[in-house]
Amino acid sequence: MTPNYQARRTKLRRALKKAELKVDGLIISGLANVRYLTGFTGDSSWLFLSLTNCVLLSDTRYETQLADECPDLDVEIRDSGSTINDLAGKVIAKARSKRVGFEADHTTVAQHGSLSEKITQATLVATSGLVELLREVKDQWELTQIRAAIEYAQRGIGVVRSSLRSDQTETEIRYLLEAAMRSFGAAGTGFEPIVGVGPTSALPHAHAGTRRVAEHPVLLIDWGASTDSGYRSDLTRVFITGKPTKQMELVYKTVLAAQQAAIQAIRPGAKCADVDKIARGLIERAGFGKYFGHGLGHGFGLEIHESVRVSPISERKFEAGMVVTMEPGVYWPGKFGVRIEDDILVTDDGSEVLSNLEREFEQVFVPILA
Amino acid sequence: MTPNYQARRTKLRRALKKAELKVDGLIISGLANVRYLTGFTGDSSWLFLSLTNCVLLSDTRYETQLADECPDLDVEIRDSGSTINDLAGKVIAKARSKRVGFEADHTTVAQHGSLSEKITQATLVATSGLVELLREVKDQWELTQIRAAIEYAQRGIGVVRSSLRSDQTETEIRYLLEAAMRSFGAAGTGFEPIVGVGPTSALPHAHAGTRRVAEHPVLLIDWGASTDSGYRSDLTRVFITGKPTKQMELVYKTVLAAQQAAIQAIRPGAKCADVDKIARGLIERAGFGKYFGHGLGHGFGLEIHESVRVSPISERKFEAGMVVTMEPGVYWPGKFGVRIEDDILVTDDGSEVLSNLEREFEQVFVPILA
Repeated sequence: MTPNYQARRTKLRRALKKAELKVDGLIISGLANVRYLTGFTGDSSWLFLSLTNCVLLSDTRYETQLADECPDLDVEIRDSGSTINDLAGKVIAKARSKRVGFEADHTTVAQHGSLSEKITQATLVATSGLVELLREVKDQWELTQIRAAIEYAQRGIGVVRSSLRSDQTETEIRYLLEAAMRSFGAAGTGFEPIVGVGPTSALPHAHAGTRRVAEHPVLLIDWGASTDSGYRSDLTRVFITGKPTKQMELVYKTVLAAQQAAIQAIRPGAKCADVDKIARGLIERAGFGKYFGHGLGHGFGLEIHESVRVSPISERKFEAGMVVTMEPGVYWPGKFGVRIEDDILVTDDGSEVLSNLEREFEQVFVPILA
Repeated sequence: MTPNYQARRTKLRRALKKAELKVDGLIISGLANVRYLTGFTGDSSWLFLSLTNCVLLSDTRYETQLADECPDLDVEIRDSGSTINDLAGKVIAKARSKRVGFEADHTTVAQHGSLSEKITQATLVATSGLVELLREVKDQWELTQIRAAIEYAQRGIGVVRSSLRSDQTETEIRYLLEAAMRSFGAAGTGFEPIVGVGPTSALPHAHAGTRRVAEHPVLLIDWGASTDSGYRSDLTRVFITGKPTKQMELVYKTVLAAQQAAIQAIRPGAKCADVDKIARGLIERAGFGKYFGHGLGHGFGLEIHESVRVSPISERKFEAGMVVTMEPGVYWPGKFGVRIEDDILVTDDGSEVLSNLEREFEQVFVPILA
């Protein structure tokens, strides 16, 4: 099974018409969007999609790679004496486009300025989220990739868990985890893994450092794998490596209850903010509201953070085929943090939790060796 | 020795005045720019710098990390119910700014739109490259970091070279290289290492794949390390692992001669395009011009590609303290490619090659074990 890029571009053309922007072409400059629509894995390249045609704008570094990865695609190559804006100007003039959309979320104000200078015959029209909207709902091939990325991540953490030692540092655990995931077939990590002992676990976006497992009973790991095709997974587990306090147990069980209640509420048509509120309300009622400052979850796929965002301000509704994280957390500054994160597929009548690692409090005790 | 962030911000204020933009504040949203000016290693955070004041805008995920990394800095934290644009609007209103610069190279058209809605009392003014210009010339502390990143990279490749085997795949070599650099103290790689055997070496931006060393006498590795402080190195070597053809030898010696001639021409005041031309001319006269499509080099530091660019269209002049790569290449599609890349510091009276790995044709033969 391979992705049907042609079908994706057809969907995009349909979305473009539906958006009533009256454009006769669209410049796609978001890296993951270009990959999603063409399969091209390089960078610095744009896709120009008109209602009838489609051209990839790139440079000589990628000439051979493009022929290999996108054999059916028209390609225009610039040399080192010209910019991609120059090339875009030529391609759009050749296509006789009069109104051309561009991705306002992936075009800087400076790029837009340069592009405006080069595109003299056509009006540039800002568009937002057209390809991202398509990417929210995963197709069967993408789900296969995401399931593989989850499998690599789960097998990798199995190695870490089974070989945990009291003298290991956060960084050592991180490297072991990366190597283990690769040994199972992952292309690499899905993002820089967070490995935090004790106070470091209280930093939602900590870097793995020099703390050792024995320093504190709480070990938090937020990690994921990536596949050769670029798809990711995103999981978090807390392991209890020593004797926990009552407070730790209470925090852990509160976070888990919040996560489970939120997952139960996911179904097509449910509003993201409402699902966020279920988890947030539960954490607030337990008295930990001020220690949960981030959103509840996010979509992922080719990128680790994708639309949709599940947060208090997200008016979006879930749709079947979306894949999101559910990751409430409670962070006690200077003490410890607990976050539990799983990957959820929205199904026709509810949801499927794609990740199946143990998550009950009693199941995350890890006897560590001295 | 630690970086003097205060001094960097003072320099930026001076540059801001000199630019005559008549702004009374500047929003810095480029990630590496924020890090350069504050030492903060997280993301999703902006710096607002007025002529008298300086505030970091972030969210609750980074509250503790900010207190740790930037203890002297004023910090404004948003909660998950508001956006960074909301917060920027408040901070700028509080500062009573009337004209506020923003980074046009790091602000998308969409962000600019949202920001304009939130900032009602001040005019937004596009700026470009203000911090990047400061970052072009490295200070002593930065040079220490870059030298360390080069040292990690050089020691790492030493491990790879000394343990090369005929059955190793590109991917295996990549992982070994990463692990070796980390074992010497690197935080990680400076970018995804390129490891290419034969035809893969002809792709300037190839991913390491499944080709094995024994398949072809040419092995190209483009790699670098990163330090904990975020600084990078960027090197390329070609190793000859079997009997080379006359063509390979000719290409190799041409590329090396081009690199050496270009390095000789680097000094303060020399124009980047002119130095590019020296290398390019030499490759063209050898008949390989059409196989060298990318620029000759680029600055690096906190990011792997920074200003300045050494290309045929760069009007910039070298200045003492700049650090750039010099990396001509010749890529024979489907056959093999040669690129030789070193890291060069521009000095008061010329340049210093910071990387000192062997690069003569006779020195890159590696006897491989079966």
